Amino acid sequence: MMTRQHPGEHMAAEISEQPAVLAGLVERRAGIADVAEKISQNPPRFALLAARGSSDHAALYAKYLIEVLLGLPAGLVSPSTATLYGARPDLRDVLFVTVSQSGGSPDLIEITETARRQGALTVSVTNTPDSPLRAAAELGVDIGAGVEKAVAATKTYSATLLALYLFIDAVRGGKGEEAERIGELAQQTLDGAAEGVQRAVDRYRFVDRVLTTGRGYSYATALEGSLKLAETSYLAARAYSGADLLHGPVAAVDGETAVLAATSAGRGGEAMREVLEAVNERGADVLAVGSAAHDVPAALRIPVAPSAEELAPVLEVLPIQRIALGLSLARGGDPDSPRGLLKVTKTR
Amino acid sequence: MMTRQHPGEHMAAEISEQPAVLAGLVERRAGIADVAEKISQNPPRFALLAARGSSDHAALYAKYLIEVLLGLPAGLVSPSTATLYGARPDLRDVLFVTVSQSGGSPDLIEITETARRQGALTVSVTNTPDSPLRAAAELGVDIGAGVEKAVAATKTYSATLLALYLFIDAVRGGKGEEAERIGELAQQTLDGAAEGVQRAVDRYRFVDRVLTTGRGYSYATALEGSLKLAETSYLAARAYSGADLLHGPVAAVDGETAVLAATSAGRGGEAMREVLEAVNERGADVLAVGSAAHDVPAALRIPVAPSAEELAPVLEVLPIQRIALGLSLARGGDPDSPRGLLKVTKTR
Repeated sequence: MMTRQHPGEHMAAEISEQPAVLAGLVERRAGIADVAEKISQNPPRFALLAARGSSDHAALYAKYLIEVLLGLPAGLVSPSTATLYGARPDLRDVLFVTVSQSGGSPDLIEITETARRQGALTVSVTNTPDSPLRAAAELGVDIGAGVEKAVAATKTYSATLLALYLFIDAVRGGKGEEAERIGELAQQTLDGAAEGVQRAVDRYRFVDRVLTTGRGYSYATALEGSLKLAETSYLAARAYSGADLLHGPVAAVDGETAVLAATSAGRGGEAMREVLEAVNERGADVLAVGSAAHDVPAALRIPVAPSAEELAPVLEVLPIQRIALGLSLARGGDPDSPRGLLKVTKTR
Repeated sequence: MMTRQHPGEHMAAEISEQPAVLAGLVERRAGIADVAEKISQNPPRFALLAARGSSDHAALYAKYLIEVLLGLPAGLVSPSTATLYGARPDLRDVLFVTVSQSGGSPDLIEITETARRQGALTVSVTNTPDSPLRAAAELGVDIGAGVEKAVAATKTYSATLLALYLFIDAVRGGKGEEAERIGELAQQTLDGAAEGVQRAVDRYRFVDRVLTTGRGYSYATALEGSLKLAETSYLAARAYSGADLLHGPVAAVDGETAVLAATSAGRGGEAMREVLEAVNERGADVLAVGSAAHDVPAALRIPVAPSAEELAPVLEVLPIQRIALGLSLARGGDPDSPRGLLKVTKTR
């Protein structure tokens, strides 16, 4: 017997699960440290990360962590160079990390197999320990977020970020101390943001032009926020790193534009000040989300619990997910089954 | 005495100069081969590319070329990991290519200096041989496109693509044979596209939702097309690789959406077929630009002269630049001096 669901029921439930999912992941961090140990035994010279969709934003976050915390040059893989053009680069001394919650995208499985044959040390980061991607990679980090029913990724995204943080922190010999209270901070963030989220949903009910922006680690938040709005509310929101926004696209910003900015305490958030001053000057309506949101020029501010800057993206995304959910419902959509979306991509 | 200019005069002139600029660059390719020779003498294990704005799209194109033609893993640098967070990765055996037409962006100069200190072999690709960026890098490739007066990059973009192609082809021992007729092909493309460009400008006069898309080498065309529309016509056009578009954002595509697709002959263009079928099914208005544009489902097709697939991005962008120019003028703008834009970025 089928039970008819309320629109957005799954997405709403999965957003609310995140404090418990994140806390659970921190508790299981010894398992991630075991994988990291194997990396430390064969220290790589370079890192490559492969992913699509939300996981690609998590991969970008990991790229920053690898460069800053491990001092390793890192790059995001363009899968098509291998799958379309047959590129077979020499990958000895390369750590190759494939991020995919489903572990089922054929192109990611193919490039992971290729990378392994080309000499890379391959690690999968998946939410499905029995997936073909996990089988293709030598090592595996388990996200452990539980089944995600909504098509729009929420808990698998934040848990992927945290899994990558714990993994990279462990490779440098850390014990994940900074992340110990992350579940609690996530709950504080969801609770503290409730009023701001409602105001944002009201304010942006009829918005048409949205840009998202962030710098440093929080650039991942801008990318994920823009994808979430596109998937659930059909807004063609575009994401820019704060630096790139100033470089050219700021010309398209005017009084009709809403700018969703990730602004957490730290160097990335600091560097956002000049960006927000520039878009404010052009009449844009700024929605600041982050632990330093109170400290920037904005029309609306949504607070986020303070954390180490490296972990801010795990928290900043939570109110943005709720805004995407709220806007989708307000606009008559169903974020659990956006038109034309499948959970696993089959592109090559 | 100041002469008052017609709106878009510089951009129009610089677009038309491209056949001559490209032909001139091919003639001077021996100079680029000399730089490439020095790379071949110290073969790198990994390549990193740093750039912003239009040059970042050229850098992505080069990343694909390096992976496919040289078999080297490659990554795009996130400047902020060095400039904001002080990352100092070990860059021995790394080829570090910084792409900037002005050669004057402080953050790109800083990260090039840092990369050199960290052991990388540094190469600048600039349009200004006497720039501080050129001085910061050990080797330099000169784009030689001449002074660009319009704020929106046109001839420096296509010339940067070609300079990167000639450089990478020379590193693998090529002599640039595929590019020999590129100036002529560029002229054929501009001439052959004239009618289609005019129809596109008429058709999209009032468009509000635009996506750009491409796959493989031509993903760079999608990114550059979207930036050009944003800078000159203030359209918040968003670019997606064809594969990523199918993964999620296709949900935002509907009968109100114009999709500008780069579709040239070759594997990237082939792989666009399923993408265009999907957006067509959703009612989108497809504008196909490329040497295989006649062969895909589209509302409007703009032909581009056939070339080796690797060189298609140099040609595909030409009609798109003219569309951006035409739309800007039709909408009452001046693409030569878009509101709030400077030619050289000063972000850190």
